[in-house]
Amino acid sequence: MGKVHLKGNDTKEKKTEFSLVRVTSAWKCDLGKKATAGCVSAAKIYESITEQGTSWTVVSPIVFTYKEVYRIYGAKLTEYLEANNVVYKILSLPTTEENKSMTMALKILEEVNKFSLDRRTEPIIAIGGGVCLDIVGLAASLYRRRTPYIRVPTTLLSYIDASVGAKTGVNFANCKNKLGAYIPPAAAFLDLSFIQTVPRRHISNGLAEMLKMALMKHRGLFELLETHGRMLLDTKFQADNSVDGHNCFQAASQATRIAIVTMLEELAPNLWEDDLSRLVDFGHLISPALEMKVLPSLLHGEAVNIDMSYMVYVAKERGLLTEDEKQRIISCMVGLELPVWHEAFTMELIQKSLQDRLEHSGGLVRMPLPVGLGEADIYSDTSCEILQKAFVKWCGELSGSSDSN
Amino acid sequence: MGKVHLKGNDTKEKKTEFSLVRVTSAWKCDLGKKATAGCVSAAKIYESITEQGTSWTVVSPIVFTYKEVYRIYGAKLTEYLEANNVVYKILSLPTTEENKSMTMALKILEEVNKFSLDRRTEPIIAIGGGVCLDIVGLAASLYRRRTPYIRVPTTLLSYIDASVGAKTGVNFANCKNKLGAYIPPAAAFLDLSFIQTVPRRHISNGLAEMLKMALMKHRGLFELLETHGRMLLDTKFQADNSVDGHNCFQAASQATRIAIVTMLEELAPNLWEDDLSRLVDFGHLISPALEMKVLPSLLHGEAVNIDMSYMVYVAKERGLLTEDEKQRIISCMVGLELPVWHEAFTMELIQKSLQDRLEHSGGLVRMPLPVGLGEADIYSDTSCEILQKAFVKWCGELSGSSDSN
Repeated sequence: MGKVHLKGNDTKEKKTEFSLVRVTSAWKCDLGKKATAGCVSAAKIYESITEQGTSWTVVSPIVFTYKEVYRIYGAKLTEYLEANNVVYKILSLPTTEENKSMTMALKILEEVNKFSLDRRTEPIIAIGGGVCLDIVGLAASLYRRRTPYIRVPTTLLSYIDASVGAKTGVNFANCKNKLGAYIPPAAAFLDLSFIQTVPRRHISNGLAEMLKMALMKHRGLFELLETHGRMLLDTKFQADNSVDGHNCFQAASQATRIAIVTMLEELAPNLWEDDLSRLVDFGHLISPALEMKVLPSLLHGEAVNIDMSYMVYVAKERGLLTEDEKQRIISCMVGLELPVWHEAFTMELIQKSLQDRLEHSGGLVRMPLPVGLGEADIYSDTSCEILQKAFVKWCGELSGSSDSN
Repeated sequence: MGKVHLKGNDTKEKKTEFSLVRVTSAWKCDLGKKATAGCVSAAKIYESITEQGTSWTVVSPIVFTYKEVYRIYGAKLTEYLEANNVVYKILSLPTTEENKSMTMALKILEEVNKFSLDRRTEPIIAIGGGVCLDIVGLAASLYRRRTPYIRVPTTLLSYIDASVGAKTGVNFANCKNKLGAYIPPAAAFLDLSFIQTVPRRHISNGLAEMLKMALMKHRGLFELLETHGRMLLDTKFQADNSVDGHNCFQAASQATRIAIVTMLEELAPNLWEDDLSRLVDFGHLISPALEMKVLPSLLHGEAVNIDMSYMVYVAKERGLLTEDEKQRIISCMVGLELPVWHEAFTMELIQKSLQDRLEHSGGLVRMPLPVGLGEADIYSDTSCEILQKAFVKWCGELSGSSDSN
């Protein structure tokens, strides 16, 4: 690989070049000079700090990207790789939820196989939303029994959710992520500027997972979303030059940072999900079945939000939330332009999902429920009666709200 | 699960029942009484020690078995599972090298998915040869991102080779084990009595991998195979009631134990194969391409032996072996009824394989070569001239020996 000549003459730019060095089995950023022992990758990470913020760029031999991402960023990416004499191949894929299958993973693997790479030193880069990151991650994990990969999330949802943790996966037998691996990426690179090209509905989609973490463990994040949610939607997490620019930058960076840190706190000690008592499962007990049932009409975060909305009624029914707290949560959801009810979310679907969960989880359904605002606990003893009562109230109060599609 | 009533009235039998307990992320045998913390599996392992030796039996909910194995042991297995009130499903599969594909893995996954199991506590059992163990291992690794599996090897080759280590895999794009995972089994259960039903040619097949370990690191094992190889072939590693019965039992258990222990020593510190300097790669540089090229005419161990036979000539050419040592090794191979030459093992195949290796291994081909009998070293500087000279001598001296098919 040739030397990299970064463009632009911004003298205030501070550039740092990192190599990727394997320390025991993990890839680590390294300033390159002192790395004598260990395995050094052909890939490089370039960190650039300017007044506008910090950005990272990765140079590596093979890149997978979501079709829409390629349309927007393909030219820029190609120009960059060419300018740096990188031997590369870009593959743009229609990585949608419907295509999230082993067939797609095998298609990727054929391309990887044609492009001779050394699985010990040459990572694969996935640039796209959660589906793209999940499929490419699985393909990389399988190739030669493990090839390093790097996640570059381009949607708000994948930025705070799929970029974190070790999970990869594809759908199978009409079940979400039934096949996969727990293989962490060599790195995940987060750049909020990608979010500016994400459609408004997909911003809401990401906000749902942020709200999840807020409800489970951070009252400050909840209040931030309650107060600034609309602004974040309007500005797409970008700082502009308006008088509110600074406010927005503050809110955007605070909200994403808290969402990621709270998620990391939950995932790090439980990377393989051996522990089934997981707060991050809030909104994920019924929503996988709902999402697959109505595919492609609901986005992941939308299905999660509908699940959370119902669970808020369950929590209220169990006396864990006051009527006022319940109302504030639902209002916040509506403010984030998220659906709070769906006709396909039936009592039958609820019971079937919980039954499946029971069979796969050692005979106990662990249900995370909010207790007040920004706190939660896990309950394994929610009765059918409570579920039913909550369902009736939920439908009574919210079925009037049309779903956002 | 009901209590197990073992049959027979051998009062000298010592029976022990083990539970499988998860300690951090590994499954461990446990006597059951003291296991208070941690996750206990529904599966059980029954150890029985008699004068004839030690055997282990596993009870667990889902069993995959090679078709031929099912024909021989199916009735016994079914009877056992029925007698113990185990909820089970046996699937008998044509797990041949040609079928070792992701398609077969997905077929297994469909069955696993129909049979509701808790991936945290209910292991899948693979009973069969190496291909069966590899495919089922990969399927288990993928299901719900990781389901424990148990290996029960029924051939000599899988007994000493595939049963050891963390590798699973399927063939892809006409390359051996191109897709897979490094996920160790919950346990591997070794029972030499399975070997009595293995055809003679497949005993030779297993002896090739034993010879590999002998040549790389154990002169005692080499001499054992040199002296008793024929008897091991004739008796199929079983002790009989003849005068030689005891001798045979000694040789069989010594040879298998040394082969497994030397293999474990090499694999344990390098489970993910980060270190490319591997003695266990002896016989595995050219043989994968040979095996795939002539499929199904050569068994794995046969292809490995042809590769080793050529490498012995390379070692001789480099002055690492004397003419006498070379002759002893080749004679031992012939005594084990293994092919020592093949017309498809051409100079072109050698060069292509080494070139592929170069591209996938950071620009160095690490070639394990015997240095005397029972010792070896890794060489990265074998010249084309040496390879060519060795090839000419190898063909000159051994092409007369027809391959064993």
